[in-house]
Amino acid sequence: MRVELLCTGDELVTGLTTDTNSPYLEARLFELGIKVSRVVLVGDVREDITQALREAAHRADVVIVSGGLGPTADDFTAECAAVAAGVPLVEDAGTLQFLRERAAKRGRELTPNVARMALVPEGSEVVPNPVGAAPLFIVGMGGCRLFFLPGVPREYRALVDGEVMPRVRNELEKRPGRTYRAFRLLRTVGIPESVLDARVAPLAAAHPRVVFGFRTHAPENQLKLMAEAPSQAEADTALAAAEKAARQELGLAVYGTDGDSYPGVLAKLLTEARATLSLAESCTGGLIAAQLTGVSGASNFLLGGAVVYTEPMKTAWAGVSPELLATHGAVSRPVAVAMAEGIRAECKTTYGLSVTGFAGPTGGTAEDPVGTVYCALAAEGAPTRCERFSIAGDRDLVRLFAASYALELLRERLLTPPSAP
Amino acid sequence: MRVELLCTGDELVTGLTTDTNSPYLEARLFELGIKVSRVVLVGDVREDITQALREAAHRADVVIVSGGLGPTADDFTAECAAVAAGVPLVEDAGTLQFLRERAAKRGRELTPNVARMALVPEGSEVVPNPVGAAPLFIVGMGGCRLFFLPGVPREYRALVDGEVMPRVRNELEKRPGRTYRAFRLLRTVGIPESVLDARVAPLAAAHPRVVFGFRTHAPENQLKLMAEAPSQAEADTALAAAEKAARQELGLAVYGTDGDSYPGVLAKLLTEARATLSLAESCTGGLIAAQLTGVSGASNFLLGGAVVYTEPMKTAWAGVSPELLATHGAVSRPVAVAMAEGIRAECKTTYGLSVTGFAGPTGGTAEDPVGTVYCALAAEGAPTRCERFSIAGDRDLVRLFAASYALELLRERLLTPPSAP
Repeated sequence: MRVELLCTGDELVTGLTTDTNSPYLEARLFELGIKVSRVVLVGDVREDITQALREAAHRADVVIVSGGLGPTADDFTAECAAVAAGVPLVEDAGTLQFLRERAAKRGRELTPNVARMALVPEGSEVVPNPVGAAPLFIVGMGGCRLFFLPGVPREYRALVDGEVMPRVRNELEKRPGRTYRAFRLLRTVGIPESVLDARVAPLAAAHPRVVFGFRTHAPENQLKLMAEAPSQAEADTALAAAEKAARQELGLAVYGTDGDSYPGVLAKLLTEARATLSLAESCTGGLIAAQLTGVSGASNFLLGGAVVYTEPMKTAWAGVSPELLATHGAVSRPVAVAMAEGIRAECKTTYGLSVTGFAGPTGGTAEDPVGTVYCALAAEGAPTRCERFSIAGDRDLVRLFAASYALELLRERLLTPPSAP
Repeated sequence: MRVELLCTGDELVTGLTTDTNSPYLEARLFELGIKVSRVVLVGDVREDITQALREAAHRADVVIVSGGLGPTADDFTAECAAVAAGVPLVEDAGTLQFLRERAAKRGRELTPNVARMALVPEGSEVVPNPVGAAPLFIVGMGGCRLFFLPGVPREYRALVDGEVMPRVRNELEKRPGRTYRAFRLLRTVGIPESVLDARVAPLAAAHPRVVFGFRTHAPENQLKLMAEAPSQAEADTALAAAEKAARQELGLAVYGTDGDSYPGVLAKLLTEARATLSLAESCTGGLIAAQLTGVSGASNFLLGGAVVYTEPMKTAWAGVSPELLATHGAVSRPVAVAMAEGIRAECKTTYGLSVTGFAGPTGGTAEDPVGTVYCALAAEGAPTRCERFSIAGDRDLVRLFAASYALELLRERLLTPPSAP
């Protein structure tokens, strides 16, 4: 079944409003196995709306239209629908009565502009709006059914959930050979998108029912798996097999799935391990602390975080000796190690994590140019691990990846504790 | 000039991602007086993309296409562009060289999937990507010019600002009878949107050429002023008059304009005052430090930031006495004051800023429920100022506004130093 969405309104094409209605409906339809094939946004221009309606009705089985059903001068979607369908506008008696009673309840007369909301294309099915004034109306054009909804998000969602989805589900169940879908998002860190692709691509042949997709949301790369099959059980089975194969290939790089967040996953690991953490951040400047404290319950494991932008504070809070700083410079392996060990001692935590580097755009040396970052993890009864990273990109990106790489040292340790000596 | 946008990607039609690229570009175009006539989102389906390209090129003068230019198997927008334009894909030598050097810098070989990003429709104008791998390419189809950009927001915005907008502006200046527009965004903090609206609305009548618009981007509220006139000089004059009136009404709440960032403005004030700052953050957990250190040069004024989530660390780093904590509790006026004064003494800075509160969802007391935040500012030669705030919203929002309110204490002080005794 081919479904398209059409949203009208000047605010949607001038950057004033982000269309959040469509993603809501798309997700609801996707749960039914329907991938929306096109979303169109047009401004409040009669010819554009009419033309877009005709084109969509020509291509799709179902079109869900929103916006332009209100009482003001720039609301003329019903008018365009009538023109596109080649029928006149007629007054719907039930809606008129409803609008009159609604006005009376508020102690008002029914004004002509509000009464306009009762005008619908001839032959429409009209469905009352449970949370607002303008009704939903449904128009047939050729083989296509077009649903017209108000654009106000609260009304849109109520009508989508209560009226549109049941009708679409009904329609779908009448069709032979419908496709069932199952979906999984695998969230990875630490491997570039091109490497992720190269490692996963060879799996595709063995999983013909599954589409492998990729998405970048720095510092994450996400692998999207979508299975399609003639029954839900087959889609679920195909998805499970592809997910297993992908996980085998990607190993620890997969930190979570679907709605998981990286700080949330790490917080869970720390809490389960009954471990505590302290941070000494130089170039990330509090970014790691801010990410972790975004999780409710962070006070259970994050005992302290020091933003040590200057050498005296590295000494005062992370116990880095002035001699070490003078000998090696603040951005160096020995200083990163001393920061991690010093902050752990200062805060008396299971783990101490440190970051020092050149975030840019200024700074850096010939040996350690802008983008060079040292991260270190100190832990009880194990040697401190320190890694050097070269991060390409601007200041924001260097900081973002520096935070991610540092936290990865910790996540790896929590998942694969070093064997006892 | 008729401009359409076309965005590709399964994530855009399955509810996974909200398209934020288009509103960004729409706003930029609207500043030039161009209202985008249509936005189309399609999934990763070759025929759909190709068809949408053909239709858009047929209707519009300029089409800006995004997404599907990456190195993975579901990136095939260039291929579709070539099919729609009826030309073969060819390898762009400059891009190939750029990709090879980029890989080498990262110590990697150029893999075949990355090399695919050098394939563009024959006859394209190719423009390097300043912040990523995939280039911008521009294709002519009939009377229409199509710009192809990566969908990654950072890359999209850089190419829109640096390459697309100058070309569109150029094109526009060649056309007769246009409307001229002038635009100003006034960025405010500390006043709710409804109050902003109520204070500014009475100005509209005196400025008929200026449209007053509002936008919320927590914790900011923004006032958008757009002047329209038959000449640029008239538009500029009308805008200047409206801006003056709005500033008079809003006073210090206006912290900046257009592309200013709050941390950037504060960093400038601190640097100009040759002042230094230290932070003691409890419920904001490093958020203030992370915001300020996002500004290059933050090391000139931010000497240290302490994330003191636990009572022992409040004592160790911010010098808050255990007795004070026991008597008043960690979320209290006396503790906020002690944190600000203690961190200032510890870091030897001009100012010490502290935040302590209940970010939720758990915690809080009958007197100080979730959302209660105390912020304090300690300074040399002036009494410490402490304010209590009640913030509605979830954990993220409480933290965001707590950080904003705390920084506002500092900004106000920098703009209006207390008079000498």
